Amino acid sequence: MKEMQEFREIVGEIQDLRHTQGLLGWDLETFMPEKGAKTRSHQLSTLAKLSHQMLTSDRMGALLDHLRTPKVFKKLKAEEQATVREWGRDYDREKKIPVTLVQAMTQTTAEAMPIWAKAREAKRFEEFAPILEKILKLNRELAEAIGYTGSPYNALLDLYEPELTTDTLDALFGQLKRDLVPLVGAIQNAPKRPNTKFLYKSFNEEKQLAFSEKVLAAMGFDLKAGRLDKSVHPFSMGMGPEDVRLTTRVFKNNFFSCLASTLHEGGHGLYEQNSAPELTRTGMEGGTSLGIHESQSRMWENLVGRSKGFWKHFYPKLKKVFPKQLEGVSWQAFYKAINLVEPSPIRVEADEVTYNLHIILRYEIEKDLIEGKLNVQAIPAAWNRKMKEYLGYFPKDDAEGALQDVHWSHGSFGYFPTYTLGNLYSVQFYNTARRKVKGLEEQIAKGKLLPLKNWLAEEIHRVGRLERPAEIVQRVTGGPLDAQPFVDYLWDKYSGIYEISRPTPVAKLKAVKSARR
Amino acid sequence: MKEMQEFREIVGEIQDLRHTQGLLGWDLETFMPEKGAKTRSHQLSTLAKLSHQMLTSDRMGALLDHLRTPKVFKKLKAEEQATVREWGRDYDREKKIPVTLVQAMTQTTAEAMPIWAKAREAKRFEEFAPILEKILKLNRELAEAIGYTGSPYNALLDLYEPELTTDTLDALFGQLKRDLVPLVGAIQNAPKRPNTKFLYKSFNEEKQLAFSEKVLAAMGFDLKAGRLDKSVHPFSMGMGPEDVRLTTRVFKNNFFSCLASTLHEGGHGLYEQNSAPELTRTGMEGGTSLGIHESQSRMWENLVGRSKGFWKHFYPKLKKVFPKQLEGVSWQAFYKAINLVEPSPIRVEADEVTYNLHIILRYEIEKDLIEGKLNVQAIPAAWNRKMKEYLGYFPKDDAEGALQDVHWSHGSFGYFPTYTLGNLYSVQFYNTARRKVKGLEEQIAKGKLLPLKNWLAEEIHRVGRLERPAEIVQRVTGGPLDAQPFVDYLWDKYSGIYEISRPTPVAKLKAVKSARR
Repeated sequence: MKEMQEFREIVGEIQDLRHTQGLLGWDLETFMPEKGAKTRSHQLSTLAKLSHQMLTSDRMGALLDHLRTPKVFKKLKAEEQATVREWGRDYDREKKIPVTLVQAMTQTTAEAMPIWAKAREAKRFEEFAPILEKILKLNRELAEAIGYTGSPYNALLDLYEPELTTDTLDALFGQLKRDLVPLVGAIQNAPKRPNTKFLYKSFNEEKQLAFSEKVLAAMGFDLKAGRLDKSVHPFSMGMGPEDVRLTTRVFKNNFFSCLASTLHEGGHGLYEQNSAPELTRTGMEGGTSLGIHESQSRMWENLVGRSKGFWKHFYPKLKKVFPKQLEGVSWQAFYKAINLVEPSPIRVEADEVTYNLHIILRYEIEKDLIEGKLNVQAIPAAWNRKMKEYLGYFPKDDAEGALQDVHWSHGSFGYFPTYTLGNLYSVQFYNTARRKVKGLEEQIAKGKLLPLKNWLAEEIHRVGRLERPAEIVQRVTGGPLDAQPFVDYLWDKYSGIYEISRPTPVAKLKAVKSARR
Repeated sequence: MKEMQEFREIVGEIQDLRHTQGLLGWDLETFMPEKGAKTRSHQLSTLAKLSHQMLTSDRMGALLDHLRTPKVFKKLKAEEQATVREWGRDYDREKKIPVTLVQAMTQTTAEAMPIWAKAREAKRFEEFAPILEKILKLNRELAEAIGYTGSPYNALLDLYEPELTTDTLDALFGQLKRDLVPLVGAIQNAPKRPNTKFLYKSFNEEKQLAFSEKVLAAMGFDLKAGRLDKSVHPFSMGMGPEDVRLTTRVFKNNFFSCLASTLHEGGHGLYEQNSAPELTRTGMEGGTSLGIHESQSRMWENLVGRSKGFWKHFYPKLKKVFPKQLEGVSWQAFYKAINLVEPSPIRVEADEVTYNLHIILRYEIEKDLIEGKLNVQAIPAAWNRKMKEYLGYFPKDDAEGALQDVHWSHGSFGYFPTYTLGNLYSVQFYNTARRKVKGLEEQIAKGKLLPLKNWLAEEIHRVGRLERPAEIVQRVTGGPLDAQPFVDYLWDKYSGIYEISRPTPVAKLKAVKSARR
């Protein structure tokens, strides 16, 4: 069909521009000489403008109108239907957002970045408040322009995790709080804290990188279709399945950081590399949402990379690389050390238990801000109060409180929850893999990571964006998004490490009681 | 003025796209994983298409029409006038070239590349001939579309060196042949050949690179506004003065290659870095022509990097890095070794004397092909005959004959002459620098390269493309392009190295005789 052909050509060119933006961004963080920043920002903005123009062009509108006509649509192949549906969704949304709003957002966030950095340096939230007020107002306008049912925050959540709502999150996060706050408490009251001192000895940086790259290769990341480099903040960048760039960072005196980042970004990278090849340049390649993407990175970082089985195999290899540093440290001691749980004020340094409480705090504040129930000025007080309540820690200043994250200065509201969604999805997927892949964990304990990778590729990666998050979770796990498996996973794992016992949940007690009757 | 403002915005965006194409190309040659090639070619072609569309848009045409109206034009500032003039020139030319011709050229050259590579592998010109025939035909059509006076080859020369014609080249190259063929002969009959054996010992690659980067920094190349990396074929890529990427290559068993490439690309890099900052994103930043660009690279590579003075300072430093390899080698012996002149069949391996005869040979063949005086089938015979005549060497097969260069498979006709123009300009500029900069060569002999760099920046680099090649040469040297200084330079230098004496030129003898009368 002629229109489908033309539509494919246009989306192919939009993807070329987006992938090129990806390269400009990757280079900016890796190899760009420092004076190149100014011209780079021009290049990024020109490419963003052009790809936006192509997406919202009259021709694109006419083609989508035609392709979405029911009698035309039903003649399309299933993949074509999904492609038209997803691009149509993006087109509809972009057309609703006034150009003036986009410009105001771009300009305001460009101004906000250095103001935020300075305010954080000075530890004074009030210096950041006025511009954050503007960003908040623009985000409310954005929500109104896009439209929503229920909370205006739903319009923003949908930007990062299609179809996610506050109703869903309120239920999930309510359960998490209920179950995780006691877990954190129990861990803090546990008799023994793992020894972690040896992780902070001196580890040669080249050797750390080489070890990380070996693990990455064992995961099945194709180094002929991707790279691993260093950057200040680790990230991953897919430019189609055949060119996926990962970065990590290396600290001489903090061994686990480099490997954890590599496992994490490697998980993202596998998702990008394993889209079905025919999805390349259709816009359906890559991940379906931030939450599902994060499920892949966290599965490799936490469920695999912080598991007993993984280290049964890899610890002897690591010890050969760093025999002095790890002298006298058993794999069990190592396993406990990399699984230390300790409330700390900073999200990015948090462990897999407390991390989610950091996210819930941000979610509640963001939602209240967007719904008009909280003023910008009141953020630090709300932040600190919640920190104390959820993590038992009262931030000593705004730098370790409400100013710690860059996201708001970027204009991103609705992004944070996807981090915890990733944790929830990851356990749901991993539990399914354990059921479906014979001997999965025995394989991992032999250093064989490909059975997991292949299953993920087949079940989740291959479809790219052809399915939405909820569809994928339902198809793969047989049920909807659910917090219970994650909670169970954490209790099981950490009651072992900390020798604590899980209180029988009230609901279960009730069930037992009713059964008795 | 409102139109000038809009014009500037459009050319700014075109430059953003072109610089981004530069990054895509740089990455392709340096860090891109091998499987990324296919999507990369899509990205490059989409960006090329978009920048071409922006250049040839109706709006651009209308703006140029307005800005080139005499009464508007005369109100513009001098820089604005030059900018409008040069973009207008590009616009006029691009509008004359039919889209079908551009497409045919793109497609044919894409097909030609692997055919050329295979034919060269098989050493069979006849395998390449049919597609070269097509490329030649398209180049003739291109010349007709663009228009010309005199030879149709002039239309193609102008693509690389504005305003250059066959009349100029015939005169210059005629003189070069007349003077250089005897020089090559005299060198070949010289009693002693420099010993070069020590250049091919084993030199640690990291140390070679580090030494090269030190020299690059001494040249004044700003490593905060550029980088040096490795690639198979060395090149330079300017993305505005604040981001200039250079590459070099390193051979363990061929010391001078890495440093020579670094000096060469460093010369290009300085030209790109030292455009006046206000030219950024106007399209007037960077070099005015390939010939002038090449004058900068060859000045640093040959006039500086193969000079006595340079090595007086740098040789002791080099010897500290490679004491074993250079044991017993004096700086004079080193100087002679890196200035070996020896006819060889391959252009890219040629020294600074014989190189130009390779170029003249290609020029003569290209011109005859475009003017219809030579058939494609007859190329190998013509090539080999000329090789024998100019360099005394008869190629043993087509791989070391007519198939050695990639240029024709790219569709580039008219490019080769700019290499030799670069040599001619370089000596004209350098002689001027010696007159104008006090103690220039004494400074170089102390390792102080900045006086030369600063003079070049001020006289040549700063103006970018605001002046055309002929204007620059006239302003800087006080005269037009001239082969005589180059010929004199070579005779002076090599009669010293090879202990040969220059025959008194016929013209000079005649002048002497007339003076006597």
